[in-house]
Amino acid sequence: MTDTTTSAGSRKDGRTLDQLRPITIERGWSDQAEGSALISFGKTRVLCTASFTNGVPRWKSGSGKGWVTAEYSMLPRSTNDRMDRESVKGRIGGRTHEISRLIGRSLRAVVDMKALGENTIVIDCDVLQADGGTRTAAITGAYVAMADAIEWAREKKFIGQRSKPLIDSVSAVSVGIIDGTPMLDLAYVEDVRAETDMNVVVTGRGLFVEVQGTAEGAPFDRSELDSLLDLALVGTTELALLQNAVLAGPAE
Amino acid sequence: MTDTTTSAGSRKDGRTLDQLRPITIERGWSDQAEGSALISFGKTRVLCTASFTNGVPRWKSGSGKGWVTAEYSMLPRSTNDRMDRESVKGRIGGRTHEISRLIGRSLRAVVDMKALGENTIVIDCDVLQADGGTRTAAITGAYVAMADAIEWAREKKFIGQRSKPLIDSVSAVSVGIIDGTPMLDLAYVEDVRAETDMNVVVTGRGLFVEVQGTAEGAPFDRSELDSLLDLALVGTTELALLQNAVLAGPAE
Amino acid sequence: MTDTTTSAGSRKDGRTLDQLRPITIERGWSDQAEGSALISFGKTRVLCTASFTNGVPRWKSGSGKGWVTAEYSMLPRSTNDRMDRESVKGRIGGRTHEISRLIGRSLRAVVDMKALGENTIVIDCDVLQADGGTRTAAITGAYVAMADAIEWAREKKFIGQRSKPLIDSVSAVSVGIIDGTPMLDLAYVEDVRAETDMNVVVTGRGLFVEVQGTAEGAPFDRSELDSLLDLALVGTTELALLQNAVLAGPAE
Amino acid sequence: MTDTTTSAGSRKDGRTLDQLRPITIERGWSDQAEGSALISFGKTRVLCTASFTNGVPRWKSGSGKGWVTAEYSMLPRSTNDRMDRESVKGRIGGRTHEISRLIGRSLRAVVDMKALGENTIVIDCDVLQADGGTRTAAITGAYVAMADAIEWAREKKFIGQRSKPLIDSVSAVSVGIIDGTPMLDLAYVEDVRAETDMNVVVTGRGLFVEVQGTAEGAPFDRSELDSLLDLALVGTTELALLQNAVLAGPAE
Amino acid sequence: MTDTTTSAGSRKDGRTLDQLRPITIERGWSDQAEGSALISFGKTRVLCTASFTNGVPRWKSGSGKGWVTAEYSMLPRSTNDRMDRESVKGRIGGRTHEISRLIGRSLRAVVDMKALGENTIVIDCDVLQADGGTRTAAITGAYVAMADAIEWAREKKFIGQRSKPLIDSVSAVSVGIIDGTPMLDLAYVEDVRAETDMNVVVTGRGLFVEVQGTAEGAPFDRSELDSLLDLALVGTTELALLQNAVLAGPAE
Amino acid sequence: MTDTTTSAGSRKDGRTLDQLRPITIERGWSDQAEGSALISFGKTRVLCTASFTNGVPRWKSGSGKGWVTAEYSMLPRSTNDRMDRESVKGRIGGRTHEISRLIGRSLRAVVDMKALGENTIVIDCDVLQADGGTRTAAITGAYVAMADAIEWAREKKFIGQRSKPLIDSVSAVSVGIIDGTPMLDLAYVEDVRAETDMNVVVTGRGLFVEVQGTAEGAPFDRSELDSLLDLALVGTTELALLQNAVLAGPAE
Repeated sequence: MTDTTTSAGSRKDGRTLDQLRPITIERGWSDQAEGSALISFGKTRVLCTASFTNGVPRWKSGSGKGWVTAEYSMLPRSTNDRMDRESVKGRIGGRTHEISRLIGRSLRAVVDMKALGENTIVIDCDVLQADGGTRTAAITGAYVAMADAIEWAREKKFIGQRSKPLIDSVSAVSVGIIDGTPMLDLAYVEDVRAETDMNVVVTGRGLFVEVQGTAEGAPFDRSELDSLLDLALVGTTELALLQNAVLAGPAE
Repeated sequence: MTDTTTSAGSRKDGRTLDQLRPITIERGWSDQAEGSALISFGKTRVLCTASFTNGVPRWKSGSGKGWVTAEYSMLPRSTNDRMDRESVKGRIGGRTHEISRLIGRSLRAVVDMKALGENTIVIDCDVLQADGGTRTAAITGAYVAMADAIEWAREKKFIGQRSKPLIDSVSAVSVGIIDGTPMLDLAYVEDVRAETDMNVVVTGRGLFVEVQGTAEGAPFDRSELDSLLDLALVGTTELALLQNAVLAGPAE
Repeated sequence: MTDTTTSAGSRKDGRTLDQLRPITIERGWSDQAEGSALISFGKTRVLCTASFTNGVPRWKSGSGKGWVTAEYSMLPRSTNDRMDRESVKGRIGGRTHEISRLIGRSLRAVVDMKALGENTIVIDCDVLQADGGTRTAAITGAYVAMADAIEWAREKKFIGQRSKPLIDSVSAVSVGIIDGTPMLDLAYVEDVRAETDMNVVVTGRGLFVEVQGTAEGAPFDRSELDSLLDLALVGTTELALLQNAVLAGPAE
Repeated sequence: MTDTTTSAGSRKDGRTLDQLRPITIERGWSDQAEGSALISFGKTRVLCTASFTNGVPRWKSGSGKGWVTAEYSMLPRSTNDRMDRESVKGRIGGRTHEISRLIGRSLRAVVDMKALGENTIVIDCDVLQADGGTRTAAITGAYVAMADAIEWAREKKFIGQRSKPLIDSVSAVSVGIIDGTPMLDLAYVEDVRAETDMNVVVTGRGLFVEVQGTAEGAPFDRSELDSLLDLALVGTTELALLQNAVLAGPAE
Repeated sequence: MTDTTTSAGSRKDGRTLDQLRPITIERGWSDQAEGSALISFGKTRVLCTASFTNGVPRWKSGSGKGWVTAEYSMLPRSTNDRMDRESVKGRIGGRTHEISRLIGRSLRAVVDMKALGENTIVIDCDVLQADGGTRTAAITGAYVAMADAIEWAREKKFIGQRSKPLIDSVSAVSVGIIDGTPMLDLAYVEDVRAETDMNVVVTGRGLFVEVQGTAEGAPFDRSELDSLLDLALVGTTELALLQNAVLAGPAE
Repeated sequence: MTDTTTSAGSRKDGRTLDQLRPITIERGWSDQAEGSALISFGKTRVLCTASFTNGVPRWKSGSGKGWVTAEYSMLPRSTNDRMDRESVKGRIGGRTHEISRLIGRSLRAVVDMKALGENTIVIDCDVLQADGGTRTAAITGAYVAMADAIEWAREKKFIGQRSKPLIDSVSAVSVGIIDGTPMLDLAYVEDVRAETDMNVVVTGRGLFVEVQGTAEGAPFDRSELDSLLDLALVGTTELALLQNAVLAGPAE
């Protein structure tokens, strides 16, 4: 009866309401970065690199603690219509800032800064192709890149053999309500039609790091909120398993 | 046993866990703006103005619909340590962008753009003094300013006598978990110690517009999330009553 | 016979030619700043804060002398038509720069930098509502804020008990010629019609710090210049008395 | 007894107190501009061009009136120590803005915008070498450039044969008090030592356009102000004669 | 005897002096752009997209001619050490500008703007991984992307069936002198040691579009210049064949 | 038969194909800079200054080597139509960056940084009037300014008496093909009509520092490239002689 679901409750692209798009993670894509992953959520493709450097920004110096930060950006033609480059415009837009901050907070939530020691990890998430869910793909891929950068640092003895900077894994997924129906992992055509859109960041143990729900159309009630959280946990559970499987395999 | 609550469960400033700070709304503070409110959440003071202009941005032109947007800013010495002005730095920070966008979305959620017609309302929220909760005070005060700007426009015949652009009221409050205890409307000293911090935007009818929860310290579980949402609704219910009372009184 | 004066020589708002608008100074408005004042010249309202910090900019370091600087800004809806924010435009306009520099010079003229020692005072003057004369109100209010910041520093022992950094007080007023008639303290409706507009900054002892006269319409002759200076001194004498009275009263 | 004057009351460079530095005006220096002048006040050299274009900025369109505006800039090595370029810094400083605005106002004061018609004159004053008094040299030279641009426009029939856009000439000079002694046309070594510094813009008929006096050191009294104005008029009278002589000569 | 060549005249990576690195072109990499290619010159990988839009910039409007322009950028971690993003710095560096302009000119050299009609092609070349020769890889890949975008436009009837906007193909390669020996297609470790570095852009017919030779170390003589040009033509001849082969194959 | 040459093979301005425009170099034009030259290539006039400072940028510190850098800019009315100032636009254009970098590289090619010691020379080339060939005039004049700055430093003992930082001279000229005919030193009217345009930087010994050839219209073949290089060497040989003659004469 609607544009995105069939009468049988499945979606335009054949998925069920609680089904992720095909997820692939190409670990170690970059020859340059200490850790990297090219992640796909369907047609959404994000190149995530983790740059490890010894030392911390001045305001952290002497604290014995490390630092993790992130930057997100979209290539100008990652989208259906070409966007102007933020470097050309000379200023970074609010959406970019917002997502960079979200990624940074999400990753910091699973890092023990004391165990990391006075080292810095800069995460770069560059969207090569966008089809909805770029921020959630970015967080999910960035975790893999960061894990590899930390292993690299352990081998290079920048962090101790017994230090465990990673206290948990982290992944993220979007959920939304379209024509009154909650759905998991929205593609772009679904995202633009959603009344409510929520991004949820969850650790491997199933704890919440971020819950960002927005009524794009009609405000939502408590039971809708609960349904969305349920769906999100289905997705992040699956993503956490995939992250573990990828990291358990051979590094490229 | 902690810095912010006494053994009796009340807080440093004597409030109970589900108690708002003293809220005051000085409606019509500005002689220039079509609508305005100077709102205080305790020591947090935000000047909200609503500027009504006939016409819409080019990309809305001809749609028959109106537009509402918002800008948030802090005076450099609104805080305990003076901050550099963003105009002097030549760029707007990510936090400012994020909050401006949040305020705009929150207000648009209660406006029927068709009923507003091709008119634009620009909300300015300038923090004169900051003590935690500036974005929630801003949303709560901005609603009052916007309501008056719409009345002004009705009198000036920019919108029809029977048009009802306001479909609901909207207010916002922060909640957080400190030393494991959920609390309502955090003051600055509480906010910096919170493990989890959540801003909740709710309509007068009790529907959610935005839920933004962030684990600043430890990730949170589903039952903590539920407790925070319960507390938030206590606060926004009270704020909605206050907004109505203020708007029912004489305009200054 | 004109828009701003009646046949009896008084003005639209009932003032005589040499009469200031009602002046109020709310000392200690801010809970955050070391010194502050919310000053009104009629409907013009400026929030002035003085931020005192120990230490000086690098280029002053080791000189044994202090530094005083100022920043002026207008809220976007302080004026009748909303102005774009300079932070959004990404650059500060010439007028803003000019006034910030004027305020800084005016205050430095009454400070003995040696007696201030290696300390810095940053003055912020934010126009909450504008109705002409914002720069003169800013200077007049900033002096009160600065005086309190210096007292604060004396109590905190950042400056010696016997040091007297303030060598005089300072205030400012605008004067102008409208339809050939010189007038004191122009409100906005008068300002836009003035042929000549002059801002005069004067110390408590009656000495000139700044004289900035501009022929907006017709150039002016020597006798007109003299009349304007006479009028300005009437105003600054009154302002100096008010500043003293406010500072002699109890600090809030 | 001082650095800048000898006991006989003359100055380091041999001038008397009311003597200008050697002034030269090379009219028509540029092959490109509609009007131009390379002016020297001693070692201060400013290249002034006047660019005439048919039409006015949008906000003037349809008014039947013209527009005159100015931009001032210093070459990076016009000064003794090299300054960073404002284009490289990405922002224009307050001083540059201030002087550009002063030059624009000064020239507009002698132009009948109605007689100019819907045409625009942009004045560029680029300081090739700086030795004090750059803004006054700029105004004085810019008048000559503008007069030639208007003649060019008359020949090209952009303005009518009988239109008289120039209602007067305009020139400017600095005066200051050094060691208590008022002096005319300060060179850089004098300027940095001045207690009071004043820039005065005067029309050919002897009327004031701008009076900008600043106490850099000690505040000044009314009689000092009067002496400075007297001296300034000596200078601008001489400059006006020189401008007339140059413009009466053959155009290059 | 040197770091980059063995005694047998071959190079560190086993190539002969006139041998290109392995070149791969993944045509149609992007699902969003009208034309695209992911090109590799060894470890250098550049994503090239061509965005076709109907219409031209205002300054071309009505000319009956089209426009082609290009933007080049490097991902922050495309290099061995992470670089700051130009969007974060708020300004584009000289090198980026220079290369963007070079790519644009190179592609325009093989386009008949009349045959293109009033349509615009924007080329984006984003370096995903850098190991020397990024600008030459960008030009070579961009040609393939542009050719596909033109075919797309022909199918969509934005350009006529018989119009031939492409008058030739274009590719580019770097050459350099290292320890006195000229070499083709420098990898990064070779590039940093080159005394002379030259980028040469050549059409499919073997004509020069750009020759940019720079003495990084010692200036070079005429015979060295000739050797470099000979080598470059070896490379571009091979690249042209590869481009043709790729475009003759099936579009993805 | 063409706009720029007569049937006799000479050009509009009477020059032969291999003839430079009248070149003048006014050495020591500036009273402020350590070295300076006002150079003219016909109507093109560029003011070149060399600012010598003891010390080097941080990234060179401790290397025992010096640094030379350059900045190029055009006055807004140096051209036939007034251009906007880059300081006003808030960003430097690609062309300006490109030329600044070219000048810097060209001058560094003839400086022995070890002999210069830890000193910095900043070259400023400001185009006062533009008629084609501004970058080549800038390089040619900048060499003279730099040579004088080095002599100044030797006198001031910033560099040793026997140090020889200058290992060669350097000059530059443009060449181009117009209507199939190669020509030396293009004036603006020739430049805009050139099919191919080349800037060549050559040392006094006749070695190439930069060769930058661009097909503005049709691509060019090897023999055309050879003709252009031949012509360029005619020009730079003459310019080198002139530079030597000027530097052999008395410093102003």
